[in-house]
Amino acid sequence: MGVRPDDASEHVSLEAVRLPEPAPLPEALTRAEGVELRTDVEQRLRHAAGRSYPDLVRLRRGELEVAPDAVVVPFGREAVGPLLRLCAEERVAVVPFGGGTSVVGGVDPLRGEHAAVISLDLSGLREVEVDRISLTARLGPGLRGPEAEAELARAGLTLGHFPQSFEQATIGGFAATRSAGQASSGYGRFDDIVTAVELIAPVGSLRTLQIPHTAAGPSLRELVLGSEGTLGVITEVACRVRRAPKRRLYEAWVASDFGAGREICRDLAQNGLLPEVLRLSDEAETAISLQMAGVGGARARALDAYLGLRRRRGGCLVVCGWEGEPDTVRRRRRLAVRRLRRAGAAALGRSAGRSWERGRYEGPYLRDTLLDLGVLVETLETAHSWSRLEELYCAVRAALREALGERSIVICHLSHAYPDGASLYFTFLARGEPGQELEQWRRAKSAACEAIVSCEATITHHHAIGRDHAPYMRAEVGELGLEALRAVKNRLDPAGVMNPGKLLALGRGG
Amino acid sequence: MGVRPDDASEHVSLEAVRLPEPAPLPEALTRAEGVELRTDVEQRLRHAAGRSYPDLVRLRRGELEVAPDAVVVPFGREAVGPLLRLCAEERVAVVPFGGGTSVVGGVDPLRGEHAAVISLDLSGLREVEVDRISLTARLGPGLRGPEAEAELARAGLTLGHFPQSFEQATIGGFAATRSAGQASSGYGRFDDIVTAVELIAPVGSLRTLQIPHTAAGPSLRELVLGSEGTLGVITEVACRVRRAPKRRLYEAWVASDFGAGREICRDLAQNGLLPEVLRLSDEAETAISLQMAGVGGARARALDAYLGLRRRRGGCLVVCGWEGEPDTVRRRRRLAVRRLRRAGAAALGRSAGRSWERGRYEGPYLRDTLLDLGVLVETLETAHSWSRLEELYCAVRAALREALGERSIVICHLSHAYPDGASLYFTFLARGEPGQELEQWRRAKSAACEAIVSCEATITHHHAIGRDHAPYMRAEVGELGLEALRAVKNRLDPAGVMNPGKLLALGRGG
Repeated sequence: MGVRPDDASEHVSLEAVRLPEPAPLPEALTRAEGVELRTDVEQRLRHAAGRSYPDLVRLRRGELEVAPDAVVVPFGREAVGPLLRLCAEERVAVVPFGGGTSVVGGVDPLRGEHAAVISLDLSGLREVEVDRISLTARLGPGLRGPEAEAELARAGLTLGHFPQSFEQATIGGFAATRSAGQASSGYGRFDDIVTAVELIAPVGSLRTLQIPHTAAGPSLRELVLGSEGTLGVITEVACRVRRAPKRRLYEAWVASDFGAGREICRDLAQNGLLPEVLRLSDEAETAISLQMAGVGGARARALDAYLGLRRRRGGCLVVCGWEGEPDTVRRRRRLAVRRLRRAGAAALGRSAGRSWERGRYEGPYLRDTLLDLGVLVETLETAHSWSRLEELYCAVRAALREALGERSIVICHLSHAYPDGASLYFTFLARGEPGQELEQWRRAKSAACEAIVSCEATITHHHAIGRDHAPYMRAEVGELGLEALRAVKNRLDPAGVMNPGKLLALGRGG
Repeated sequence: MGVRPDDASEHVSLEAVRLPEPAPLPEALTRAEGVELRTDVEQRLRHAAGRSYPDLVRLRRGELEVAPDAVVVPFGREAVGPLLRLCAEERVAVVPFGGGTSVVGGVDPLRGEHAAVISLDLSGLREVEVDRISLTARLGPGLRGPEAEAELARAGLTLGHFPQSFEQATIGGFAATRSAGQASSGYGRFDDIVTAVELIAPVGSLRTLQIPHTAAGPSLRELVLGSEGTLGVITEVACRVRRAPKRRLYEAWVASDFGAGREICRDLAQNGLLPEVLRLSDEAETAISLQMAGVGGARARALDAYLGLRRRRGGCLVVCGWEGEPDTVRRRRRLAVRRLRRAGAAALGRSAGRSWERGRYEGPYLRDTLLDLGVLVETLETAHSWSRLEELYCAVRAALREALGERSIVICHLSHAYPDGASLYFTFLARGEPGQELEQWRRAKSAACEAIVSCEATITHHHAIGRDHAPYMRAEVGELGLEALRAVKNRLDPAGVMNPGKLLALGRGG
């Protein structure tokens, strides 16, 4: 990538961070009941940004353009309604905050046209109530992934929702952003798992019935899911849960190329044989993955010889993760393996699968190391129907390479396969342009987004809209679609205090 | 039921039908382009009502309180937008009409506060475009069930959507009402099947991208699904399709009682072993089903002896329908049968299963015969989580028996099983009170609806809201939920011409 030793950058210490001066808070807010109010620099800083590349650049520089004027932590659900009413009256913007892992600027504490902005930290709302007969659980929005799983594990249950942000992200955030976990093929995306929600808005609250399904009009649950804090605060989420899997079997295969691998994924998806986890890396990501899995030295040479023998050198890695009852795993895997072999995939075995599994949450940490070295590294994702996936893949890759230059690295994997299509997840790396990192990032991001839109694909399969994708909402749902959603927002949040500048904020060029 | 020979009623001939005087149509409407305009009595009558019991009573009496002032048939999608704009300008109410099979008053041609009302017959919109790679199809809203299946069958495909209204109902109606087919456990409800929609509203149109999934905000697709013509006209529906099943195997079992049968359904649903069709009749429905399946005389005695031997006399019928690749059907069935036997179910064999399959669309026809005899007969349905299904079953049954008297018959089946719950479908019969049929029906219907609401169950699993359930929408989604949906309607249909009096029209007591 042309990275040089003197590209290495350091991040500033906490003491050196410059936060914008806090705006004065309305007197009534400082006296709000049932909440803790924090205005110290550390809390303001911890709620000042998400975890996108621009967020990291700003945090490392210690130059935050925005920060909340206060962090407010409600002790219970009953405090949320009065607080939001107060904020609407006093014209204080409210940014709901779960784990703070947004990579699209979803928690940026923007004031909009208001006098002040608070970050509403939901970490106090962590109730759990399990219905073992119906296999559902009511969960508080502030529960982090591992907390929710630990509570459910005591009843032998699991949500099965494991996005890369799992360790930090929360139930409320999963619901507000339509999160999709790495095992979504098996357990469902988070919006599949949710059966009911409670939303508290500035003008009141609504909750959907806890029922398996209804034909009673447009789905309010699906209106709250993905609302990203712009309509109100999600204060309870009821989810389907599963019995914890007794057997977990991860393995890797190599397909001859990305096209052949894609056909394998389509075949499995259209024949009801998807493993819980299915990921297909393109040639470039495969090469890096195998290197990074520590398959170096003698092992690398042995693998290379093996793949050469099987004519799969330069092929594409397929990770299959099977989870469930031992019998079921054995039976489903046997049927899928038959199709993998028939399509010419070569088995790499379980150690390569386990290696992926071990590293499944490591991406975000690795990013810090790369930033230390002066590398620009970012991810973005989209989805399309099978018949247009190749077109989309080529368009986004070409756009990123064009924007970042010949020495950049653009790698991709297919995950989240469906009978009618799949998502594509791109990672791109380049030498960071010192001092110009944000402009460089913006150039690449815009190019990729324009390519996605021109293919009529979705601007996001699971990272959500936030601030970064808001200009593309018009391309996604059309002007009238956007207007319909804004009409809902105006009804629930007439003062416009809920998470300004996100989701419904801007049309492209608007 | 105490029905007497002189209860028998006849329906009037077409000539004797009294329709309300048509309101004069605005001049501009009579000159609208790209549409056919019909004002003859037969067309007005054919679009004057749906197929609920009150509809049938009114049709048989020949006394229609309402009828459209004209029936308008667009020749293509491009005519719909200008027509709706015109109707909004001229204050003409528009009732979108597909197959006219609503059993909740969904197509009642109510004028609301407008000068006239038209029925917008979508039978001209019948385009089909199949994507064999992605296994999706774009379908026109006017296609009836059998038409859509015939088109797809030419490509070896199926929607797998077979509600009891299949023969008459249309793609647009399925989408507008969140229809669920008898094989929903296998193929998904219609709202599961739909991947994209186009909606033309009086102020403009919106369409969602044809993609497998998106995290781009609240789901507009889920806002259009179930909108029942109150937001605009659904002019295109993209659906997932499947390869047509090579093997279809229907069979029946008998569980010892309804509770034991319910546990069987829950066990299959929570272990991923649902057949494509799964129905469990309660004791009363079982007795009638076995009689009606023609299991009379010697066969009845043999069956009775067999069930007595297996201690299942007075038990509950379970119908399992398996569809798919022969291998898959064999394997899935074997696993399910193991669980059925373990739970004490006795096999009734395939002829009883085939008998259910043969009669799957007969219910609506049988109703006509019963009305001829002077019998009140109606159905309603709901759904709840497994842990509250027994409570719901008892409450609705008791309410109907109380309202209709001791000699009434109330039967029920469980269908549409999910991991977290299931739907209950009630059929109730009583001697019709001559001349007071509508009041008698209203009494029973209200009692059942109140029971459902008091259990916090849904007012409808798949019949939709229409006019009859509109008073219960407040209980279903709350006042603020209703207001959020009304805000969308006000944005898309500010003149309020789209299907007045349905879905969002009334709160209970409002």
